[in-house]
Amino acid sequence: MKGEGEASGVPEAAGIPEAAGIPEAAGKPEAAGKPEASGIPEAGGRAKPKIQLELSLNQATVQNLSLDDAVALCVRHEITGIGLWRHRVAEAGLARSAAAVRAAGLHVSSLCRGGFFTHADPDARAAALADNREAIATAAELGADVLILVSGGLVPGSRDIGLARRLIADAIGDLVPDAERAGVRLGIEALHPMFCSDRCVISTLGEAIDLALEFPADVVGVVVDTYHVWWDVRLPTEIARAAERIFSFQLADWILPLPADVLLGRGHVGDGVIDFPAIAGAVASAGYTGHIEVEIFNERIWDDPADSTAATVKDRFRRVLG
Amino acid sequence: MKGEGEASGVPEAAGIPEAAGIPEAAGKPEAAGKPEASGIPEAGGRAKPKIQLELSLNQATVQNLSLDDAVALCVRHEITGIGLWRHRVAEAGLARSAAAVRAAGLHVSSLCRGGFFTHADPDARAAALADNREAIATAAELGADVLILVSGGLVPGSRDIGLARRLIADAIGDLVPDAERAGVRLGIEALHPMFCSDRCVISTLGEAIDLALEFPADVVGVVVDTYHVWWDVRLPTEIARAAERIFSFQLADWILPLPADVLLGRGHVGDGVIDFPAIAGAVASAGYTGHIEVEIFNERIWDDPADSTAATVKDRFRRVLG
Repeated sequence: MKGEGEASGVPEAAGIPEAAGIPEAAGKPEAAGKPEASGIPEAGGRAKPKIQLELSLNQATVQNLSLDDAVALCVRHEITGIGLWRHRVAEAGLARSAAAVRAAGLHVSSLCRGGFFTHADPDARAAALADNREAIATAAELGADVLILVSGGLVPGSRDIGLARRLIADAIGDLVPDAERAGVRLGIEALHPMFCSDRCVISTLGEAIDLALEFPADVVGVVVDTYHVWWDVRLPTEIARAAERIFSFQLADWILPLPADVLLGRGHVGDGVIDFPAIAGAVASAGYTGHIEVEIFNERIWDDPADSTAATVKDRFRRVLG
Repeated sequence: MKGEGEASGVPEAAGIPEAAGIPEAAGKPEAAGKPEASGIPEAGGRAKPKIQLELSLNQATVQNLSLDDAVALCVRHEITGIGLWRHRVAEAGLARSAAAVRAAGLHVSSLCRGGFFTHADPDARAAALADNREAIATAAELGADVLILVSGGLVPGSRDIGLARRLIADAIGDLVPDAERAGVRLGIEALHPMFCSDRCVISTLGEAIDLALEFPADVVGVVVDTYHVWWDVRLPTEIARAAERIFSFQLADWILPLPADVLLGRGHVGDGVIDFPAIAGAVASAGYTGHIEVEIFNERIWDDPADSTAATVKDRFRRVLG
C-alpha cells in the first residue's frame, strides 16, 4: 500500500554537485529572475561580504581522540582553532589541557558544554547550576570564546513546554553574574525541533535570540549550528537580528536517511542539502568574525582515520565556503 | 565515552500520567505562579473555550483496511468522521466510495492528499498539477472538508530552499481557480522540520499561514497537525493568527525513541509528550469547529486489530480532550 514513505521528489542524500544551483527550467519566467525573497546574498554575488575562513575543528568530529591527539591533529593539518569537550579536558587535566592548546598556538573557539537545566527536582536544578559554574570556570581557564549551552528538554513527567522554557531562563539568569565575573560568554544553542522533547526546548534561532536578549549582550548570545537551523524560513532574518549576539558558528550537513540514532546523522560539509554559502554569507553580514567550527556527529566518520577526517573537513571547508 | 546521547533529563517516552501537570517545586516562586507566557489557555481553566469533540478517524491510522472496512469500523465505533486517502478511494472506485461514506452517514473531514510540487522538470511540474486537479475533483465528489497538501521538499539536485518555496506558491496559485470552481478547500500542511529536505519545505504553521494569506480565505488555509508543530514556541500565536484559515486539525503524539523510519514514529494521543488540551484549546479559541482527526503512522499500531485501535483512539480522544 502506498504510504507516506513513497512520495516523489526525494533528492539524493549526498553528492549534489557543487555547481548544481538553480535548474534553468525550474522557475516561471518571472520567478526565475527574481532575487531570493529571503535576502540571503547569492554565493558569488557582488555584494557578498568577506567570510573569515578561520576553520576550527570541534573535537566531537574526531570523537575517539584524546585532547592531546586532537590538538596534534589540528597542528598537523594547520587548523588554527579547536572546539573542546569537557570530558576530554577533564581526562587530560584542566591545567595540562590549557597548557597544551596554548603551546600548540590553537584558538579555543568553544567549550562544550553547559545546560540541561530542566529538572523538576530543586536538588537536580542546583546540581545543574553547580555543574554549569564548573563549566564556566573551565571555559575561563581555557580562554574559550564561548561556553555552549544545550538547555534541556521537557521536564521529566511534564508536558509543559512553557515550564521548561522558564526554568532555562531562570538558570541562565542565575549564571550570568558568574559568567560575567569569569569573562566567559554563554552561547544558547537552538537544537533541531526533533530534539525538543528530550534535549532542548529551544528549537529555533529566533527563540534563542529572544532568550539571549533578556541578558547583557557581552555575556549571553547564541550559537548558529547549520544542522539545527537550516530549514527555517526565518533564518536569514534571525541571523541578521542576532548580529553581535552570534557567539559561535558551527557547520554540519543534513543528510538522508536519518540513522536509527538521529543524534549521529550529520554529514561532512557538502555531502547533504544545506546551502552553506548562503548561511555563512548571512552570518558574515551580521558581523560575525570568529572561527567557524565543523562539528559532526557520525559514527561512520568516527571510524575513519582521524587524519583522513581532518583532511576532508579542511578540503570541504575551503571548497564549499572558499 | 560520553557523547551527546547520554545527557540527563530524557523523559519517559510514554506513560506520563494525565495529571502530571507542573511539579510543585519546579518554578521559582515568582515564576511558578505566572500564567504561561505563551497564552495557551490552561487545561481546565475557567476561560477554556468549548472544544467540539467530533472525532474523525484518518484512515492512515488503520493503514491495512480497505475503504469499506474503514467505513464499517467507524460506524461500529460510532465515530462520525473519516479522513480518506486517495489510493484507497481509487481502489474502491470514486463513485462507490462516495456512496459508501454517504450511506454510512460519515462526514469526510479530509482527503489526503495533494502537493509534491517541487520539481525542476516542467513536465514533472505539469504532471503534479494534473494530479492535484484530479485530487480536487475527488475531494469535491466526496464532499471532503479539505484537500490536504504536502507541498514537497527541496528540488532534486538543488539546495535552494527559496526555489522550492516559490514553486509551491506558484503551483497553489495555479490550482486556486480549480479549487474555487469545485468548491474544494486546500489545506497547506506544515511538516516537522525533519522532513524539510525530502517531503515539505513548509516547516512551521507560521510559514503555512503566510503562504495561505496570498490566496482567498475561503479557498486556501492550513492544517494544524500536532505531531508536526507541537514544539514551536510561536504555536499559540500562529494558531490565533490562522483563525478561520484552519481547515483541518489532526492529532498524533510525539513519542521517543524515533524509529528507523521517522515517518512511522507517531503515537496514540496520550502516549507521548504533546500537551493536547493546550493546543486544542488554542485551536478552538481560534474559531475552529470542524472534526478533529486522529492520524497515526506507526507500524506497530497498524499490526494491532483495527477494532482495538479504534477503541483506543476513541478512548484517548475522550480522556485527553474531553
